[in-house]
Amino acid sequence: MLDFFFNPKRVALVGASDTPGRISSILLEGLKNSRFSGKIYPVNPAHKKIGPLKCYPSLNDIKEEIDLAIFAVPASVVPGIIKESEARLKGAVIISGGFGESGEEGRALELELKESVKKGSIRIIGPNCMGIYDTVSGLDTFFIPGERMKRPGPGGLSIISQSGSFAVTVMDELAAEGIGVARIVSYGNKIDVNESDCLEFLADDDATRAVAVYIESVEDGRRFVKAASRCAAKKPVAAVKVGRTEAAAKAAFSHTGAIAGRYEIYRAAFKKAGIIELDGYEDFLYASRVLASEKFSGGNRVMIVTDGGGIGVGIADSCVEAGLDVPALDEETKKRLQGVLPPFCSLANPIDLTGSATDGLFSEAVEKTLSGGEYDMAIVAPLWGPPALTDELPELIARIKKLLKKPIIICTPGGEYTRSKMDLFRRAGLQVFPTPEGAARAASLLVKRKKVL
Amino acid sequence: MLDFFFNPKRVALVGASDTPGRISSILLEGLKNSRFSGKIYPVNPAHKKIGPLKCYPSLNDIKEEIDLAIFAVPASVVPGIIKESEARLKGAVIISGGFGESGEEGRALELELKESVKKGSIRIIGPNCMGIYDTVSGLDTFFIPGERMKRPGPGGLSIISQSGSFAVTVMDELAAEGIGVARIVSYGNKIDVNESDCLEFLADDDATRAVAVYIESVEDGRRFVKAASRCAAKKPVAAVKVGRTEAAAKAAFSHTGAIAGRYEIYRAAFKKAGIIELDGYEDFLYASRVLASEKFSGGNRVMIVTDGGGIGVGIADSCVEAGLDVPALDEETKKRLQGVLPPFCSLANPIDLTGSATDGLFSEAVEKTLSGGEYDMAIVAPLWGPPALTDELPELIARIKKLLKKPIIICTPGGEYTRSKMDLFRRAGLQVFPTPEGAARAASLLVKRKKVL
Repeated sequence: MLDFFFNPKRVALVGASDTPGRISSILLEGLKNSRFSGKIYPVNPAHKKIGPLKCYPSLNDIKEEIDLAIFAVPASVVPGIIKESEARLKGAVIISGGFGESGEEGRALELELKESVKKGSIRIIGPNCMGIYDTVSGLDTFFIPGERMKRPGPGGLSIISQSGSFAVTVMDELAAEGIGVARIVSYGNKIDVNESDCLEFLADDDATRAVAVYIESVEDGRRFVKAASRCAAKKPVAAVKVGRTEAAAKAAFSHTGAIAGRYEIYRAAFKKAGIIELDGYEDFLYASRVLASEKFSGGNRVMIVTDGGGIGVGIADSCVEAGLDVPALDEETKKRLQGVLPPFCSLANPIDLTGSATDGLFSEAVEKTLSGGEYDMAIVAPLWGPPALTDELPELIARIKKLLKKPIIICTPGGEYTRSKMDLFRRAGLQVFPTPEGAARAASLLVKRKKVL
Repeated sequence: MLDFFFNPKRVALVGASDTPGRISSILLEGLKNSRFSGKIYPVNPAHKKIGPLKCYPSLNDIKEEIDLAIFAVPASVVPGIIKESEARLKGAVIISGGFGESGEEGRALELELKESVKKGSIRIIGPNCMGIYDTVSGLDTFFIPGERMKRPGPGGLSIISQSGSFAVTVMDELAAEGIGVARIVSYGNKIDVNESDCLEFLADDDATRAVAVYIESVEDGRRFVKAASRCAAKKPVAAVKVGRTEAAAKAAFSHTGAIAGRYEIYRAAFKKAGIIELDGYEDFLYASRVLASEKFSGGNRVMIVTDGGGIGVGIADSCVEAGLDVPALDEETKKRLQGVLPPFCSLANPIDLTGSATDGLFSEAVEKTLSGGEYDMAIVAPLWGPPALTDELPELIARIKKLLKKPIIICTPGGEYTRSKMDLFRRAGLQVFPTPEGAARAASLLVKRKKVL
């Protein structure tokens, strides 16, 4: 139903410009440089051409049918342009701010837009939003220059966000971590398309394997629960609600005019819909990293293997605090480990391989403990002090993960040397976290999926 | 009382070796390359010389009085060597493992060491520890090669840790963040010197402005509370207790033989002693970054200034969840802001400067809100999308912090571009955190100091 937003063939850019640094110019450059393969129609009565592209005086001067128009013109002129060309457009992405979030006049402009939507021929994303970043269609209306915000590559995660800056920041983080995405939608003041519309689309979207949602407010709770339930039945959906506390809710109101509502109500709705509840920015990042890429866990029993006793104990604390179980080694597992681990290794959970750890000891300890029925997943925490550890370790662990088909999360805290090893784990297909808390939270998300279903 | 550990003039290395990769060789290289200016005495009957240094067959063959002997020889021979030379030594740092943490035989060896201590002429750090890293004396017994673990520079923070690997990991993180330290002590099985001894020394140590403690177990609770109280009355002391949960406590036992005890007891002791309670690894890092470098806050009222509305709301949530107050702007503050902020900025807490933010708007918003009596500190959260933000911003904010003498914490989440800006804040003397949760937790630690006193 919203297909033209995500697979547009012809896109107009209203207010196109070639003045460097202007939003409209960043947008046009972005569209030209992105992998978007459809046709681009700059619209601006002040230009005949922008670079090699013909520029049209108005939307109505374009002969071809336009799927999508992107608006980067002052708020005051947007409703008029929409009205005069609503029959020619399927969808509009209104980047411009100066609407409901900024007082009386802006609210009146929003009402005009809503009238156009009511007539039923046009759908609107925004206003006051970043719009769409889409690795399937190649569309990119996020008007931050590439040097300030990196774009993630293709992947299975889709993100829907009321806040544009939140979406931008997360995208930039994901790009830095090498995490790919499918569709990202920032819908700002959402006078039309909202989280429920997006969830409906993403439920049936083959490119989307998991969805993460940033919410300030939901207006139609019943519709939201219905759309989210349908989506969550097909793929993991996780959501953070900001404005959980009263102070923050007030701030959210002044930011997008959203009435944030009591958090308990959102919690109950998430639970009902089978949404994994996220408790803040960090959780959102953890979810973004594991939801689309990791296998979900059949249970919550975690095995911890480390070469740093203290960090291991810290991971055990964090696991229990995140709702996971850290069962001691039973006789069965001990038997499998006997003759494999030297006597200086502690036969407990966590297993501490000590400073005498080797790649082989890590891999044996993980395989022998995960191969039975006693543990559902592992957190493997190599500290890189032990001189015998090599760059082969990530691949060894990745092989066990593939072989045993159980989640394995890496936790490797430390400075420069350690951080330089994180990429090796990522390239081997393992999710890696720099703190016990992060690894434990990420692991717990893989169990929550099971729980909420 | 423990002065010879921290300002030794003559240090012997028992088991010195020049075989590359061996612990004893890493130790010797470390001592030679470190800023330690005292005299080094290698001891090993197998060598006459190691590099340019004369090597002694035994400790008793050294004529000069030795302050400290570092032991990197098999556990089984340590008690004998100590016994035959205990009169000649003030202190010993026993790096070697294979004692109480590894079974019956090891426990017997520990008992022998304890007998030497009881006689009263020698003090022992360890066994099964990393020993001392000290930027005042230059001593460094942490036997991890420099390329695998960077050493922090000089600073006001001292760390005492039962776990060696925990200390190593934190040191490496601090070095990567440019945070300096004074003394770091890892005491492992602590058959003699323990957290209470270290707290007693650090209380009177001028180089130490703040102390962070990693605890698996405390044996003499009364003495600990006394030593910690005295230290905490002079400088901030923060502590994490691992093995808070039952599963983790079991693991701690197998790791250093410590009986972890019920967490509630530790909590009560921390409270009584005026120790700031830390709830895990991340908190420990936050404390390490702010305790020695930041002014403590007179109250818990936080002003949030950002250019990313959504992130601002998230910070407000995190602040409230960390026990801070995020009061709305009162009329007084609004008056100071009028005519300063353009109408598109939201006059709320957080202040959202939006994508039109400039260095000047950030600095005006922070100064005008912090300069009155309504707020005790600020979290400033620039997202780097807005094209008008420049590299001048950190210095501008740092100036306001100096001028107003209130804590200002930076929160700047994002990817590559943003991360490249973090160093600018650090160099300007500002502590910078990549997530709302981190910034809020760090800010809350500055209030807790006041609360616990």
